[in-house]
Amino acid sequence: MTTLRRYLPILDWGRTYDRTAFSNDMIAAVIVTIMLIPQSLAYALLAGLPAQAGIYASIAPIILYAIFGTSRALAVGPVAVVSLLTASAVGQVADQGTAGYAVAALTLAFLSGGFLVLLGVFRLGFLANFLSHPVIAGFITASGILIATSQLKHILGVSAHGHTLPQMLGSIFAHLDQVNWITLVIGVAATAFLFWVRKNLKPALRRMGLSPLMADVLTKAGPVAAVVVTTLAVWALGLDARGVRIVGEVPQGLPPLTLPAFAPNLLGALLVPAILISIIGFVESISVAQTLAAKKRQRIDPDQELIGLGAANLGAAFTGGYPVTGGFARSVVNFDAGAETPAAGAFTALGLLFASLFLTPLVHYLPTATLAATIIVAVLSLVDLSILQKTWGYSRADFTAVAATIVLTLLMGVETGVASGVAISVLLHLYKTSRPHVAEVGLVPGTQHFRNVRRHKVDTRPHLLTLRVDESLYFVNARFLEDLIQSRVTEGCGITDVVLMFSAVNEVDFSALESLETINRRLKDIGVRLHLSEVKGPVMDRLETSHFLSELTGRVFLSQFDAWTALASEEHLNRAAE
Amino acid sequence: MTTLRRYLPILDWGRTYDRTAFSNDMIAAVIVTIMLIPQSLAYALLAGLPAQAGIYASIAPIILYAIFGTSRALAVGPVAVVSLLTASAVGQVADQGTAGYAVAALTLAFLSGGFLVLLGVFRLGFLANFLSHPVIAGFITASGILIATSQLKHILGVSAHGHTLPQMLGSIFAHLDQVNWITLVIGVAATAFLFWVRKNLKPALRRMGLSPLMADVLTKAGPVAAVVVTTLAVWALGLDARGVRIVGEVPQGLPPLTLPAFAPNLLGALLVPAILISIIGFVESISVAQTLAAKKRQRIDPDQELIGLGAANLGAAFTGGYPVTGGFARSVVNFDAGAETPAAGAFTALGLLFASLFLTPLVHYLPTATLAATIIVAVLSLVDLSILQKTWGYSRADFTAVAATIVLTLLMGVETGVASGVAISVLLHLYKTSRPHVAEVGLVPGTQHFRNVRRHKVDTRPHLLTLRVDESLYFVNARFLEDLIQSRVTEGCGITDVVLMFSAVNEVDFSALESLETINRRLKDIGVRLHLSEVKGPVMDRLETSHFLSELTGRVFLSQFDAWTALASEEHLNRAAE
Repeated sequence: MTTLRRYLPILDWGRTYDRTAFSNDMIAAVIVTIMLIPQSLAYALLAGLPAQAGIYASIAPIILYAIFGTSRALAVGPVAVVSLLTASAVGQVADQGTAGYAVAALTLAFLSGGFLVLLGVFRLGFLANFLSHPVIAGFITASGILIATSQLKHILGVSAHGHTLPQMLGSIFAHLDQVNWITLVIGVAATAFLFWVRKNLKPALRRMGLSPLMADVLTKAGPVAAVVVTTLAVWALGLDARGVRIVGEVPQGLPPLTLPAFAPNLLGALLVPAILISIIGFVESISVAQTLAAKKRQRIDPDQELIGLGAANLGAAFTGGYPVTGGFARSVVNFDAGAETPAAGAFTALGLLFASLFLTPLVHYLPTATLAATIIVAVLSLVDLSILQKTWGYSRADFTAVAATIVLTLLMGVETGVASGVAISVLLHLYKTSRPHVAEVGLVPGTQHFRNVRRHKVDTRPHLLTLRVDESLYFVNARFLEDLIQSRVTEGCGITDVVLMFSAVNEVDFSALESLETINRRLKDIGVRLHLSEVKGPVMDRLETSHFLSELTGRVFLSQFDAWTALASEEHLNRAAE
Repeated sequence: MTTLRRYLPILDWGRTYDRTAFSNDMIAAVIVTIMLIPQSLAYALLAGLPAQAGIYASIAPIILYAIFGTSRALAVGPVAVVSLLTASAVGQVADQGTAGYAVAALTLAFLSGGFLVLLGVFRLGFLANFLSHPVIAGFITASGILIATSQLKHILGVSAHGHTLPQMLGSIFAHLDQVNWITLVIGVAATAFLFWVRKNLKPALRRMGLSPLMADVLTKAGPVAAVVVTTLAVWALGLDARGVRIVGEVPQGLPPLTLPAFAPNLLGALLVPAILISIIGFVESISVAQTLAAKKRQRIDPDQELIGLGAANLGAAFTGGYPVTGGFARSVVNFDAGAETPAAGAFTALGLLFASLFLTPLVHYLPTATLAATIIVAVLSLVDLSILQKTWGYSRADFTAVAATIVLTLLMGVETGVASGVAISVLLHLYKTSRPHVAEVGLVPGTQHFRNVRRHKVDTRPHLLTLRVDESLYFVNARFLEDLIQSRVTEGCGITDVVLMFSAVNEVDFSALESLETINRRLKDIGVRLHLSEVKGPVMDRLETSHFLSELTGRVFLSQFDAWTALASEEHLNRAAE
């Protein structure tokens, strides 16, 4: 029963569902639905799919996530970055507008869903951690720029293509003579209006005396207003006949039952992009879910989240959708609007189902320029170049990772960009740990504390060299320590004892063990003893399984002060003996 | 002047060179030369090159290393593993026996030399550390097995090919009907003789009253004896006419001046193998050099070693050789025989030059089966499967890396094997640090020490949660800490203060900083304060450049005991106020 409830969180919150929760969830659902209708159409367009795919991708996935997900406020559906990744991946195997393109998008959702479920079942959610915060921030910023740029062609009314910034800009410049001026007017007006709504409408409505809830609903309805006005304008003035591109025929009805394709070639070509989409989607989703859950002391189980998101994507694959994830904007809106349980999501799904059944004929004359405007306004809030400045001040390694991710994403495309970002951050981390901070320490007079001889006035003894190693010892830095001790001992005269202080050594792997054995042997050859101090329990447990401790020429001291005292009295005895 | 001496170590030892050093170096050179003549021919064969290439690769490279290298005992030339790597790399771009094959080998030496010099000049020797000890051990063992297997065809007198164990064995089985029985007799006899020499000759000679030096020289001459006897047998009995394959015509003369090829295609195809050969060769060489140097309290400069080995390889590229490095066996022999300076290497080069000028006609009738026997006996000492058992007892991660390296090298070839080994060890390391050991600690009564509540009897306070984090905080484990604290705080009731004890945190990267900010903010939302204690100097320096410290709801305590005392008295005050 408990296991069942772990895998089906709906059994948890479902049992205590009451009237208050219901009405709160309903209000949230209405607000989110109003926001989602134009957004879903727009993101489908961004993914290169027919508009209805965005609506379909917001119905079954939301319901499946409500059953399997652990977040009470996360709103699942098409999001900007994943739509861009979809366009980039599917564009490599099929041409936009063909049946093959839509099937490839379903297959991508299927692969992504399957991969997420596998990760969840095998509890491998930690893999997402390889995306460092700077890499994610850089990637999201660069994606925002790419997405906004990709929409310029709709605003200008030209046909252009490309998946990198130079390709897109080049293609737009090449077609600049074909600009459709009516489209441009609609696009620029819609963009300006939406920016104004986002920035100024809510305070203005509040000043006019509207309740916060009403002000919020009206602000969220801004894109709907833009859609309605521009659609009416095109229909009334017959602008589609004058070259303004419109959404056109959108089929009316329930989401269709669809099947992804299982051709080995296609699966092979989409596998890596699917993994990338899964991990990026999961990272975006889990950060939102955790931030919202923390505000109410609720818990998110990351591995169960993988299963929830996986189920949502599998749902998308079989109902005419494309890859989905938990979106930042819609989840925050859902949370702020008072959603208490995943039922709010289910009601949103019902709202969108209603739209799919009855409202689609109304968007026939909707100009794509308006949808492009909603995308541009939404994604420009993702662009945050301040991360460059923040990391520059904090750490050059992190700055390098961000800058490389941004530049490579813009110039080489999303997949190369994010993969390079991960590789660079791993390499920089390994580089940092390959040359650990090692301090020669001495006794702070009057205490039992040992500090760096270069920073503090401390006592030292000529025959005793004590080194504090500030890093776990493993293969990447094992040889570094060998070299360091070798050079210290050959430089210093009269050293008879070397103590390695292990207070910050959290691991000693087999390479480091062999290095310690080598250091011990080499020091022995020249008559110097090697001691350890302050070795942690887990490290000691492991060293005890090896021969190292029995071969060690010196001793292992519980504390550095013990080592100091013991070796001092030995020295005293030796001198007395001489 | 000092800079010049850093780059030209010969200026260092050359100034104090005297008669004693000269005679010691000469004796070592004679012993090493006797050992090297058959070995050089054999390794050239292993690399798929004409026999003389092995001799040529032992002349100019040794002299160049003597000028630029820092080790006094390292003997540079063709070695087994690098010969195998050469055969594998060159075999992919040219067929054995063609002129293109030899030119590709020169090009490989040129690329490898250039890469090593670049690494040395830019002081990038630390890159070699990515090869962990278990990966090297696994790779050397698997290479030994591959090399021995590759020589079986010469012992059997069949023609076979392949670069992986299944390919080689399959090819040998397919040709088993073509076994040349005379070759087999020669091969098995030579192998048995050489094993006997290696194991039993030296003790037997010592028992017969010979001096250790003479016993040593005679033992080293074992392969020469095998060469002489089998060559005479083939010549006297005309066995080459009965299908016994012989070395054949070996040109007499100085090493030729040669040019590597600079065709972009060839350079491109050989670049990755050249990098691999450089790094593996460097790792093998530097371990030997450091072990020998440590015995005499001498220093090895790893970056200057790169330049020395790079120069040696460039020398090989222009004098008819192929990639070389410092060999384990020959260096130990050189050292044991009393070599004092790199001049011993130069004298060895003169000995080989003499062999190249006058002795090559004598090896015309030398059967390749004898050379194969010397290789098999030499490389089987590299095979050491005990590394599997050693790592199994010490750490499962290291065991996995060794086992994967061995299996993949045998089944997929040397390049895939070593690359997978590196990738696996990096991933396992990251995995280990992704779930760091975090202990809840309490005060050991009567002391100022804090220990794990699960291992020790300690005092705790219900409102105070103290966690000691045993790992540097960086992107791979940043989210782990978020989750952990989230779950601890939602589980525990009445917690008002969380203290993170940072004694083993050696780094906080930007991702971890953002996680700390998130943890601080989330705890603040539910009225819990966050404190830090025992933050190290370098970590504190960096935190001070961020906003984190000013946003921190709690304080940073110098020691955990300070935190305990201060928070206890606050609690006391609060209770009094209530």
